Amino acid sequence: MVRFECDYGEGAHPEVMRLLAETNMEQTPGYGEDAYCQKAKEYIRKHCGADDLDIHFLVGGTQTNMTFIASVLRPHQGVVAASTGHINVHESGAIEATGHKVLPIPGTDGKIYGAQVKALYDGHWALSNHEHEVQPGMVYISQPTENGTLYTKAELEELSKVCRECGLPLYVDGARLGYGIMSPANDVTLADLVRLADAFYIGGTKQGMLFGEALVIVNHALRRDFRYILKQKGGMLAKGRLLGVQYCAMFKDDLYFELSEHADKLAMKLKSALAELGYSFLYESYTNQQFPIMPDETLEKLSAKYACSFWERVDDTHTAVRFCMSWATREEDVDALIEDLKALSK
Amino acid sequence: MVRFECDYGEGAHPEVMRLLAETNMEQTPGYGEDAYCQKAKEYIRKHCGADDLDIHFLVGGTQTNMTFIASVLRPHQGVVAASTGHINVHESGAIEATGHKVLPIPGTDGKIYGAQVKALYDGHWALSNHEHEVQPGMVYISQPTENGTLYTKAELEELSKVCRECGLPLYVDGARLGYGIMSPANDVTLADLVRLADAFYIGGTKQGMLFGEALVIVNHALRRDFRYILKQKGGMLAKGRLLGVQYCAMFKDDLYFELSEHADKLAMKLKSALAELGYSFLYESYTNQQFPIMPDETLEKLSAKYACSFWERVDDTHTAVRFCMSWATREEDVDALIEDLKALSK
Amino acid sequence: MVRFECDYGEGAHPEVMRLLAETNMEQTPGYGEDAYCQKAKEYIRKHCGADDLDIHFLVGGTQTNMTFIASVLRPHQGVVAASTGHINVHESGAIEATGHKVLPIPGTDGKIYGAQVKALYDGHWALSNHEHEVQPGMVYISQPTENGTLYTKAELEELSKVCRECGLPLYVDGARLGYGIMSPANDVTLADLVRLADAFYIGGTKQGMLFGEALVIVNHALRRDFRYILKQKGGMLAKGRLLGVQYCAMFKDDLYFELSEHADKLAMKLKSALAELGYSFLYESYTNQQFPIMPDETLEKLSAKYACSFWERVDDTHTAVRFCMSWATREEDVDALIEDLKALSK
Amino acid sequence: MVRFECDYGEGAHPEVMRLLAETNMEQTPGYGEDAYCQKAKEYIRKHCGADDLDIHFLVGGTQTNMTFIASVLRPHQGVVAASTGHINVHESGAIEATGHKVLPIPGTDGKIYGAQVKALYDGHWALSNHEHEVQPGMVYISQPTENGTLYTKAELEELSKVCRECGLPLYVDGARLGYGIMSPANDVTLADLVRLADAFYIGGTKQGMLFGEALVIVNHALRRDFRYILKQKGGMLAKGRLLGVQYCAMFKDDLYFELSEHADKLAMKLKSALAELGYSFLYESYTNQQFPIMPDETLEKLSAKYACSFWERVDDTHTAVRFCMSWATREEDVDALIEDLKALSK
Repeated sequence: MVRFECDYGEGAHPEVMRLLAETNMEQTPGYGEDAYCQKAKEYIRKHCGADDLDIHFLVGGTQTNMTFIASVLRPHQGVVAASTGHINVHESGAIEATGHKVLPIPGTDGKIYGAQVKALYDGHWALSNHEHEVQPGMVYISQPTENGTLYTKAELEELSKVCRECGLPLYVDGARLGYGIMSPANDVTLADLVRLADAFYIGGTKQGMLFGEALVIVNHALRRDFRYILKQKGGMLAKGRLLGVQYCAMFKDDLYFELSEHADKLAMKLKSALAELGYSFLYESYTNQQFPIMPDETLEKLSAKYACSFWERVDDTHTAVRFCMSWATREEDVDALIEDLKALSK
Repeated sequence: MVRFECDYGEGAHPEVMRLLAETNMEQTPGYGEDAYCQKAKEYIRKHCGADDLDIHFLVGGTQTNMTFIASVLRPHQGVVAASTGHINVHESGAIEATGHKVLPIPGTDGKIYGAQVKALYDGHWALSNHEHEVQPGMVYISQPTENGTLYTKAELEELSKVCRECGLPLYVDGARLGYGIMSPANDVTLADLVRLADAFYIGGTKQGMLFGEALVIVNHALRRDFRYILKQKGGMLAKGRLLGVQYCAMFKDDLYFELSEHADKLAMKLKSALAELGYSFLYESYTNQQFPIMPDETLEKLSAKYACSFWERVDDTHTAVRFCMSWATREEDVDALIEDLKALSK
Repeated sequence: MVRFECDYGEGAHPEVMRLLAETNMEQTPGYGEDAYCQKAKEYIRKHCGADDLDIHFLVGGTQTNMTFIASVLRPHQGVVAASTGHINVHESGAIEATGHKVLPIPGTDGKIYGAQVKALYDGHWALSNHEHEVQPGMVYISQPTENGTLYTKAELEELSKVCRECGLPLYVDGARLGYGIMSPANDVTLADLVRLADAFYIGGTKQGMLFGEALVIVNHALRRDFRYILKQKGGMLAKGRLLGVQYCAMFKDDLYFELSEHADKLAMKLKSALAELGYSFLYESYTNQQFPIMPDETLEKLSAKYACSFWERVDDTHTAVRFCMSWATREEDVDALIEDLKALSK
Repeated sequence: MVRFECDYGEGAHPEVMRLLAETNMEQTPGYGEDAYCQKAKEYIRKHCGADDLDIHFLVGGTQTNMTFIASVLRPHQGVVAASTGHINVHESGAIEATGHKVLPIPGTDGKIYGAQVKALYDGHWALSNHEHEVQPGMVYISQPTENGTLYTKAELEELSKVCRECGLPLYVDGARLGYGIMSPANDVTLADLVRLADAFYIGGTKQGMLFGEALVIVNHALRRDFRYILKQKGGMLAKGRLLGVQYCAMFKDDLYFELSEHADKLAMKLKSALAELGYSFLYESYTNQQFPIMPDETLEKLSAKYACSFWERVDDTHTAVRFCMSWATREEDVDALIEDLKALSK
């Protein structure tokens, strides 16, 4: 069985494992105050092209989102997000459990646009009794989105401009940021995020690490006392060096980006093959996740050899599914899949 | 200026004021444990046709909703509501502040239907990873709704049936329950609510009292320790007798219903007149709130003599507004308004 | 039966009732935006000798405490209080329910002192891993305290000085503030509170009103968006004018203080008589609450004619009880009690 | 520099690292639903001598405590704990952030006793207005305690008996459970915990794993929907297999206990040596943490070669410090320390 279900099926890239093993018996201070965490932060700052970044390492994405968002908002504020945003649908109410509403903006491509945020913001303040409604307090987006789509630099600039005009911090969930950055369709760099966002995180779990998300807080006003809230929400890892070591392996040189590029390349190969065979897609993704719409009959035949994820029913005989490529995906497996798809199309 | 903006513009019905004055110098125990609260509960039980009802008096609607909902749900559960439901849009995130997501069901008439709840519930449990999403934990509806519409007995029976099949307590926000019960279009009684809901509240603030909402908990499983949570959320009035006395005035005989009937009758008079004059309505309401769509020009002319509430822009030259009738509205004022509307239509 | 159990046994002072009745049929905007609330704020500002005060009216003390404290603290911060403070022991965990720890300072007289706050603050920041503990974020005191004791002006100045040095807002619970201000032992004025505290509330419920607490926010930094949080926590009264009207009755002239003085005077009369008869006291109170320690035998004899509150067991044959005087207490009842006590002592 | 500061300075025991490396490229389902987690649960059940245990793996102790406690309590309930309990002092208000008060029982040895819990419980329910105070909802203890002390089987039986009489679930924080179990002073087994507690966790982070705590829920009533809350609080590790694999390494045979025994043995060696040299101890610990009181002069001399943790100032010239032994501590380092201490005593 060849598995394309998700991008977190294996452990970590061998270089990550090697460095963990090599440093295993060193004694370090706990809670992220070790030299590996410091070094990893320096590597990340260098990749971002910025010296003044406040960086924290957390274990997972839900934890990162809820801890950062709770640290930013006052009690009466909510976080604006796409209705399909991870925090709105796939985190079991983690944001609400910290006391805050997610203010969803409906859409189909997973993105929200400057004009939508402006309209929501203006609509709120135009109310004569605005204090009866949740005040928009920040904006959450994902790059790439949960649908594999990407914000262009122009879209991000527009969104950032609106957010700054409205005084709404812009936070970017980068669970798959590497796959976004290395996409052939992408024009947004880490330096752009530093310039346009107030905070973002560089995902590790789905990008070849055992676990780990690097939260980068750009805006000074949002840095104060973050470590308290990190501890309070259960996100301060005792052996914090494990996060530092892994990010060292990834960001010392370009490993993080090389692994992302590998996955994206295979995804594009599959995408082209599917398109040539006449399949349509639920979302137009240029990143490591592909969402083709396929006949149920075809899916059943594939299921003997390949695993993918159910996404949604499209009609009585068709289903949208997800094929994920990762750092660990082998090109020969993708090739075999393509051959089998071709055979099934004849 | 004659004001039709809302149903809470005046103080309380004279009989309420009289009884408050009459009992003012009596010494009673605090926190709702006085004889007036006990008596008021007996009156309400009688009107409901049920002996075994757990009744608590609170000061306001938002307080009642958030206190009861927080007392019912476990941390991972959310409350299902119409997207237009008061808890979803007009309580400043009170529910989320207690840790729970509102799970909105979209719609235009302010109501949710059994089949929609069933679909949402089944959809949740059909997920292979349902623990990544908020679990539906109870259902909230308003009778009448925020739009002035009414659930029919058949609709409520269907909804109640689904809720019981799914193990979801059904809670009814009755901020304007009297206006609903006395509507000419209504076939739902207090006894029906006892039979079909797990809890509901009988609103006082908008129905002729200074303040006050009577929460009726029917389901025994939802009664335990409610007074602790009432105290914790700031809803336990020190001089609780003030609530008891007011509900005594209202429910000793039929004052609550007589006042509601008065408002509904005037609302129907206005509704008929508006319809005859060719106005359409944003919502089809048979209760004390009417939402006609009117030319901006007409509204401007009316504004010299009458106040109503802006509701929403309909097009470039028309606006939906709200006219509220209450226990305190005078028939001659409604008549004058109708005459002026007729004059403007010529 | 003559009742000395508490200071909220009756309704409201007749002048309060009169003004409520007189204004009952006026139509006003809701939610505290009416002219009576504005006028009442002006009266209070005048009594405080300060023009620039942000004032909000709430229904009860627990509600006021939890709403204001939740509006001030960030998630990782706690509120420093005497271990006997109302928020620590008698609010059913209302503060914790908003996410914050109460950081108790032990003591016996209900007060906390500047040096104690300084030590707690310095101790926190001296920790190498302070982010593992709750950060002190503000200070809560009661004037008078729950034990009837009073902060002197010098004590309050010292506490205020420490709080400002530490950046900790100082908040004063004034549920019985009038009884404190008019105490013969008091040297703290409303103007002193404006000068020394960041916020305080002027209690109405226990001071002759039906209900109501006037929160005075002095510090500009703590004012922002308070009305949202007021609404969210269920504390925004629809017919807010009821609070405005009552505070108008109390603060237009000096009624609030005259009623307090009356109660304090009777309390001092009882205190002197008890002392002369050789009784000792659990707390040295110069306000409307007195806590004598009495033989159980005596208490039993009194109980046929007088009601007081159990406070705590002192030894096998003695109990500390509370006698409360209020605006409604009649001097002849206190005199009769004193005579009966004298007779029992013979 | 030889470091005795804590028991989480190194990575993981080599066998843990070996198994992680060996399984690294296997594809498994995420979120703890893999075969390694299942196998690890079986091993733990076997060590506990019980088939019917609900087991969940979490990353850290604070996360485990706050997630489980939040899943058990209703909003008005608090958790009873020793005032020195980890949840009361070292988790940055994590429990309060989920809405619940910690109800501290004062003490000096880190333990709470059945009679104390009974008194607290009875005291609460004896109040006429108990709903004004936080209701005790469960009991939290640590075995061994934060002070290195141990509950005896008799003490635990008494506490468990009281908890069951009072309907209070008993939860045991086992961050260092292995060191407790293998202590020469211990008579409490895993099977005893299954018999006496409603839930407990078997700590991994401080016991030789990279990270990980195994929460064992014994009581069926406390199991429902736990995975939702685990996800919501950010505690559901995407690559959950990492926890399963590590616990497999530890519990397949007796590695967990052998490593604990090693640390305890070295701690006892140091304890004896210190006692012989005349040192006294802040706490009487028979586990891997030792808290001797030492002259500042001695500590300064030691600091050139050895690191320990500051615990508290005892007097002007003495300090209590903590020496921690762990799976990774080398006997020759302890021997060298003892020799140096002897030399300093001459």
